[in-house]
Amino acid sequence: MIETKNYKTITKDDFEIVYQNIQKKIEKILSNALIKRKPQTLYEPGAYILSSPGKRLRPLLVLMSVKAVGGSYSDAYNAAASVEMLHNFTLVHDDIMDNADIRRGLPTVHKKYDVSTAILVGDSLLSVAYEYLLKDLKVNIKDTVATFNHGVVEVCEGQSLDKEFEVRNSVSVDEYIVMITKKTAAMAEMCCKIGAQIGNGSLEEIKALSSYGRNIGIAFQIQDDLLDVIADEKDFGKSIGGDLVEGKKTFLFIKALEKAQGKDKQALLKVVKNKGIDPKEIELYKDLYNKLGIIKIAEEEIKKYSKKAMKALNILKNPEDKEMFEILTD
Amino acid sequence: MIETKNYKTITKDDFEIVYQNIQKKIEKILSNALIKRKPQTLYEPGAYILSSPGKRLRPLLVLMSVKAVGGSYSDAYNAAASVEMLHNFTLVHDDIMDNADIRRGLPTVHKKYDVSTAILVGDSLLSVAYEYLLKDLKVNIKDTVATFNHGVVEVCEGQSLDKEFEVRNSVSVDEYIVMITKKTAAMAEMCCKIGAQIGNGSLEEIKALSSYGRNIGIAFQIQDDLLDVIADEKDFGKSIGGDLVEGKKTFLFIKALEKAQGKDKQALLKVVKNKGIDPKEIELYKDLYNKLGIIKIAEEEIKKYSKKAMKALNILKNPEDKEMFEILTD
Repeated sequence: MIETKNYKTITKDDFEIVYQNIQKKIEKILSNALIKRKPQTLYEPGAYILSSPGKRLRPLLVLMSVKAVGGSYSDAYNAAASVEMLHNFTLVHDDIMDNADIRRGLPTVHKKYDVSTAILVGDSLLSVAYEYLLKDLKVNIKDTVATFNHGVVEVCEGQSLDKEFEVRNSVSVDEYIVMITKKTAAMAEMCCKIGAQIGNGSLEEIKALSSYGRNIGIAFQIQDDLLDVIADEKDFGKSIGGDLVEGKKTFLFIKALEKAQGKDKQALLKVVKNKGIDPKEIELYKDLYNKLGIIKIAEEEIKKYSKKAMKALNILKNPEDKEMFEILTD
Repeated sequence: MIETKNYKTITKDDFEIVYQNIQKKIEKILSNALIKRKPQTLYEPGAYILSSPGKRLRPLLVLMSVKAVGGSYSDAYNAAASVEMLHNFTLVHDDIMDNADIRRGLPTVHKKYDVSTAILVGDSLLSVAYEYLLKDLKVNIKDTVATFNHGVVEVCEGQSLDKEFEVRNSVSVDEYIVMITKKTAAMAEMCCKIGAQIGNGSLEEIKALSSYGRNIGIAFQIQDDLLDVIADEKDFGKSIGGDLVEGKKTFLFIKALEKAQGKDKQALLKVVKNKGIDPKEIELYKDLYNKLGIIKIAEEEIKKYSKKAMKALNILKNPEDKEMFEILTD
């Protein structure tokens, strides 16, 4: 028997059109959200961070999930914008803690203004995020707010672990996965889950999309760690090897430390001890990663989590939705 | 015709018993809320601030409001604890911004730990607050969360105005009232309003209790400003004249600046210019306040807002509830 495809196969171009339309909608909500609010000393810096360029991937996850369970985008634009506000709240506060000067090519809020302003801007972005989440909620109200809120709890825990790991001498791969699950993946999981809840999906669908979000979030973070070492500087938008220079305990570094012996291990322990390396040494450490097979291990790990993510979506009814997620995953 | 009182008149002792029982319940929830949560680097400092002694007046407002509309305390203990968590979130972040070393006789979180920890502890207290708010919600879920959240938005705006006023040369009484309405009164209003919403009160009751909360909150803040000048140091728990020493633009100070002329005005402008006074000068400025009639004006203002607060409660059905609020107001 020959199976007839009774659905259109989604192309990358189709995906791009949907994505760009969503981005436009989200940008519009974000750029209007803080206008006309007072005091200006609070909302002007808030608007500054909200309007700085971002990929708006989290809103995309929300909206694709709403759609995947049979809901419509229009039910969730405000909720989708709310996760971007929440994300920006974490960026503003994290940048203070990390003493970061630049974010997305622009001065961070606490550098452009001051630390007090940045603390308060973060707090108010979070509260406005809840406001936007609530705006159009009609079904599963309690569960949706609880999901969103659980995401906030986890992201705080993840950031706390991240700061803790910075000053610890050793971190295991398992501990690292717990940390990024909370700091990065919990947010992606939350986006997919609230999308499924707002779209009034079945429990099975909600669970499947949550699993997709969590696993794709982990894959995304390991990919981010990997790109720091192998990416093209122009595409990546940050300077290559920055994690090594800062002495960050990334997936690659922890895995390398686990596998290295003798002189190699000493070289890696030196990074921990000195809290980073000289930019001149980046190539040296890249070679070490290659020698230890770390690049390949990271690539396999990314594949493993991506596959897990896509497998969870097998239960989706509409193949087009699955294809959309496939393109996103790629 | 002789009216027969068919209800028990509430005494101060009755009130105290209710208040103490509520305090016990709230302390128990607060002391258990962060136990067993991980990471400890986040929740241990959170438990530290939650367990520091407090009057727990905000939870009392929630529970009295639930009761006043016919609900029962047991529906709202977790929500009542949530407003205390929210309050502690504001304290932790405000203390960073104000560079305060001591809070309730203990080192502030950013002094005992560090600024990064304090930022994150505040954030996580806020997220756990939402969690506790949601726990037992059964009716008016969306409205209750929106009310709570609006309180967070306003408290951020109020703190922003407060910081702005610190560096401004002049602030009007009206501007000051807007600031404390947002920074202090909005929180009291929110407590009463969520209580009324959780207790499933009528729209009229919700409005009345909101008005009570807002007005009593304003009265409370002016009272706090007044106590800084006239209180007994032992009862007050802070050193007298602290606001003057710090050059705070309190109700009394702004009103004094408005009324003073000639040399008196110069003396007050010196406080602004020097961002405070020498502790030795406190008596001098107290005398000036008295001379300008500021103490009396403040007392009258407190009375005005307290009366307004109590007047709003005329619609309450049960006289005992009104009496409870009367005792609290006193």
